[in-house]
Amino acid sequence: MAETSGEPLDTLQTPCLLLDEARLRANVARMRAHLTGLGVAFRPHLKTAKSLDVARLAMTAPEGPATVSTLREAEYFAAGGVRDMIYGVGIAPAKLPRVAAIRAGGADLAVILDSLEQAETVAGHARRGGDALPVLIEVDADGHRSGVAPHDRDTLVAIGRCLTAGGATLRGVLLHAGDSYALSDPDAHAAAAEAERVAAVTAADALRQAGLPCPVVSVGSTPTARFARDLTGITEVRAGVFMFGDLFQAGTGAVEVEDIALSVLATVIGHQRAKGWIVVDAGWMALSRDRGTARQAVDQGYGVVCDRAGRPYPDLLVTDANQEHGILALRPGSGAALPDLPVGAQVRILPNHACATGAQHDRYHVLDAAGRAAAVWPRINGW
Amino acid sequence: MAETSGEPLDTLQTPCLLLDEARLRANVARMRAHLTGLGVAFRPHLKTAKSLDVARLAMTAPEGPATVSTLREAEYFAAGGVRDMIYGVGIAPAKLPRVAAIRAGGADLAVILDSLEQAETVAGHARRGGDALPVLIEVDADGHRSGVAPHDRDTLVAIGRCLTAGGATLRGVLLHAGDSYALSDPDAHAAAAEAERVAAVTAADALRQAGLPCPVVSVGSTPTARFARDLTGITEVRAGVFMFGDLFQAGTGAVEVEDIALSVLATVIGHQRAKGWIVVDAGWMALSRDRGTARQAVDQGYGVVCDRAGRPYPDLLVTDANQEHGILALRPGSGAALPDLPVGAQVRILPNHACATGAQHDRYHVLDAAGRAAAVWPRINGW
Repeated sequence: MAETSGEPLDTLQTPCLLLDEARLRANVARMRAHLTGLGVAFRPHLKTAKSLDVARLAMTAPEGPATVSTLREAEYFAAGGVRDMIYGVGIAPAKLPRVAAIRAGGADLAVILDSLEQAETVAGHARRGGDALPVLIEVDADGHRSGVAPHDRDTLVAIGRCLTAGGATLRGVLLHAGDSYALSDPDAHAAAAEAERVAAVTAADALRQAGLPCPVVSVGSTPTARFARDLTGITEVRAGVFMFGDLFQAGTGAVEVEDIALSVLATVIGHQRAKGWIVVDAGWMALSRDRGTARQAVDQGYGVVCDRAGRPYPDLLVTDANQEHGILALRPGSGAALPDLPVGAQVRILPNHACATGAQHDRYHVLDAAGRAAAVWPRINGW
Repeated sequence: MAETSGEPLDTLQTPCLLLDEARLRANVARMRAHLTGLGVAFRPHLKTAKSLDVARLAMTAPEGPATVSTLREAEYFAAGGVRDMIYGVGIAPAKLPRVAAIRAGGADLAVILDSLEQAETVAGHARRGGDALPVLIEVDADGHRSGVAPHDRDTLVAIGRCLTAGGATLRGVLLHAGDSYALSDPDAHAAAAEAERVAAVTAADALRQAGLPCPVVSVGSTPTARFARDLTGITEVRAGVFMFGDLFQAGTGAVEVEDIALSVLATVIGHQRAKGWIVVDAGWMALSRDRGTARQAVDQGYGVVCDRAGRPYPDLLVTDANQEHGILALRPGSGAALPDLPVGAQVRILPNHACATGAQHDRYHVLDAAGRAAAVWPRINGW
């Protein structure tokens, strides 16, 4: 896109979602270079972007590989030509017919599970359908949510045998070190990445020692992907939120605030001058209710307020939010001056959580190098 | 809808949004009867439902009146025949052309503002467009967010004169007692309603004493609407979330848990039995990130878990949520037994905040009296 093709931001109706294409491209290039250096494949997670335009920038090829968080994403990306996907949420039996329909359309969609009861259902489905559905066993890296314990050899092998005996394909193991989100030190993230790696290799070895196949050993989270130092035994890494970045990930140290590619454009609609409040038309509906930074060292309220060029105002936050109202005020204790922002002025708000903020919108207004709105990229939501 | 026309819930793909039509109708009937008894008109707020089907049940006539929170809602409801609307968020200058287009289509859409600078812009727009745009002055009932202070007669009159001199129509004053959300006692809510009423009447009197018109005196919030005992001097009441109810409003005492009409249907996808966790496929993307009950006497986590018939399991909450994973566990300290919910079992989750949970979805699956899915009602999002 040529710089001159863009529209000025004041032509946009607010609130709306802005995506800085140069930052997105740089974030993707940095992650790809890091993972290439570690000798692993990259399977970007598309749950944050939910956009074919973004996916094509993030994936290493138009056909994938990619990770999705819903079958709606799988259907959408399959229709857009993505051929290699993992649906990264434990499979429910009632979703298998939709999985089969996506696979019948030509996409190699794999599912994950972590119990023998799921394995029995999936194996039966594969046998009846004559489709050797590929399955990864979800392994619990760190107690974060789902997965078989990496040392629970009996369960891993029982699931693996059930799947292969039933006509499904055992494709490997999958882990997500979600507890890394609670860390903020590079060495701690590197240790979490190493723990994720060891858990993955332990589970893969258990399957292989039982004579079962385990071609794929898949790990990932934005912090562990960023800070992993050695991925011996891992075949691929999944990560998604790093593409856009957000204030929460900045709080973990996994991204820099100046690399955050996503923001919400808002307009000043009023003031409560005695209180030092500026009221804008972006409330929690446009920003999301996510307050993840409240648990971090620096609480960013509902977001950091920037000028139209994306430069943060000193200490100016969205300190409170109603459905369609955001209240801008200085960080408590700040000595900064409140900027003079009259009714009609536009600001940009950096999000706490790119996945949550993005999901409140149905399109990205893509910024060119001159900071002008050069394109509209649609995005999907729902299941 | 006949009871026999519905589909069983296990035909639905999860997560999805369920709406109990009988509860919705009862909630609307109760509010209407209460407001009729107080002698005021009802202008339902459609920001929670964002659905023409729901609007037609809630409004007193197919043409309105109604309240909207976005111009997208105004456009959608105008296309559906609603003719009398207030856009209840302070107007930004760049939105006036869209307001004019909606009005040119035949809908009487009014705007609100709380500053002389906005009044000058709106008056100029009205003069140039030859459309006597109706305006309500937003008055601050309780320090919650926007609005002119009710005793600030000079500002109220200056705004009123600017509007009428410029060719706009001064339609009245509008207030929202949002701080009532922090209360939980009927008498405290009644006192907040009385304070809202007094502020409204004070501001209206200031305009009238200056010779300005003030035909509409509009107040509203779900708790103050529910508990108001006298609305002398008020012409209309706005409220929206009461139609569906939610756990936060139950915490304020404004609704009963058994009257909550909205829930999210989810499917069990796994267990971490050693931890007492049941994992479902409804995470914060389906439930929203709203944790409003965390500040109330009873913290409901990300929601109260019910069986498929909508009966709460004792002490079972969504205690944590990732994007597409909800973790069900017993309330801390509970002596209840964890229900036996195998992979594939469905549960219903009552939301913390109906406005936020609804916005994560694009349709309602409407339940008939037999608890079956009898219809799909679309809903909109965005701006």
